Amino acid sequence: MVSKNQIKLVKSLHQKKYRNKYNLFVAEGIKVVRELVHSDFKVKAMYSSDLEIDLGTTDIIESVSQDELKKMSALTAPNRILGVFEIPQAQKPDFDGWVVVLDNIRDPGNLGTIIRLCDWFGIEHLVCSSNTVDCFNPKTLQATMGSISRVNIGYTDLQTFLKNAPVTVFGAFMEGDVVYGATVPKTGILVMGNEANGISEEVEALVTQKISIPQFGESTTESLNVATATAILLNEIRRS
Amino acid sequence: MVSKNQIKLVKSLHQKKYRNKYNLFVAEGIKVVRELVHSDFKVKAMYSSDLEIDLGTTDIIESVSQDELKKMSALTAPNRILGVFEIPQAQKPDFDGWVVVLDNIRDPGNLGTIIRLCDWFGIEHLVCSSNTVDCFNPKTLQATMGSISRVNIGYTDLQTFLKNAPVTVFGAFMEGDVVYGATVPKTGILVMGNEANGISEEVEALVTQKISIPQFGESTTESLNVATATAILLNEIRRS
Repeated sequence: MVSKNQIKLVKSLHQKKYRNKYNLFVAEGIKVVRELVHSDFKVKAMYSSDLEIDLGTTDIIESVSQDELKKMSALTAPNRILGVFEIPQAQKPDFDGWVVVLDNIRDPGNLGTIIRLCDWFGIEHLVCSSNTVDCFNPKTLQATMGSISRVNIGYTDLQTFLKNAPVTVFGAFMEGDVVYGATVPKTGILVMGNEANGISEEVEALVTQKISIPQFGESTTESLNVATATAILLNEIRRS
Repeated sequence: MVSKNQIKLVKSLHQKKYRNKYNLFVAEGIKVVRELVHSDFKVKAMYSSDLEIDLGTTDIIESVSQDELKKMSALTAPNRILGVFEIPQAQKPDFDGWVVVLDNIRDPGNLGTIIRLCDWFGIEHLVCSSNTVDCFNPKTLQATMGSISRVNIGYTDLQTFLKNAPVTVFGAFMEGDVVYGATVPKTGILVMGNEANGISEEVEALVTQKISIPQFGESTTESLNVATATAILLNEIRRS
């Protein structure tokens, strides 16, 4: 039996302040929960309304009613399973490979998609500005499809981080050099900026090389969405 | 004064069956409404809670209260303006340039992002399977950021369409040839498949060349999201 207090605790974790307070986060859905269970993440509790569920693990899954699951869930249509995990200690990024840096990304879905892209393109370290949306936000986790277990994500002051970086700092700008001609080093940093305002002035001052994705349609077009722009630029880095 | 019946009509247009019945759709937010007003789309009505709003047009904007706007809106936080537009007649696609074909795309946000990508990369024609989500879905429109006014979108039976296509039909598959080495013609068709199941068997049979985006991370990774995969493949087509 799950207690009222347990339900209350899980529900509170949909908010960042309680995630920080308890150092815990919630993941939902069999796909994401399974990936996390089989990773270095530490399981705190799991709740499921489906006794038949098989995660291939010996971790205990507490049985709950559909109604109880709904009370704990951040989704309008709750999935069959919900897991509570410890927030891991962020690892200090090395510069053995490419590092992606995010400057004030606000949309949880965009962050989740970018985490999934880092995983696909073998980017081990993702460094976010302190004002970037939390990677343990329920919507972000949903969009990662479990790939959050394979990317090290840290939050820090970008100016300090970039000042001390021993590699070239590339940044995506509307008016940067066309990326197709760029010489791509083996390691480097790729900075992506805020959805509405792009890279902030303070961070721009620390960008060594401005790059852009050429536009082929009419000039009235809105800029690319930050997640699709990241997809294109990571592909450019890897194809070279 | 806006009547109860007008509010009811606008609200009904959030559903596809009423959009088809009245041949009308709703767009919200100054960015999207402004783009549509200055395009070939025909304005039926506009409602705003902000008398200061300036779209640079002589079309009449009816003044409504914030409460009335909220009743008409599909958004939880309604924007200052809402427009009702006629659904245009779909133009028959030509093959002078690249055509993007979508096979059973279900997520409105993905479709909107793909429309925005077509606009960016100068793709004039987007052909969707009859079971692809409606492009006048409120969530789709929001994600297009107004670029729907610059892409011709049609819904049709893909088998008939592809059978008669006079160009090479490229399709995105996990096990296709690596796209980096591919010879890209001046015109062609790019088929993208469903979020969970990829391209359907019937459509696969009509694909001439299977292409894929190589994976650089661990092999356990989920496939790329269809919108980010489309971004990468359209960039590959244009950079060649």
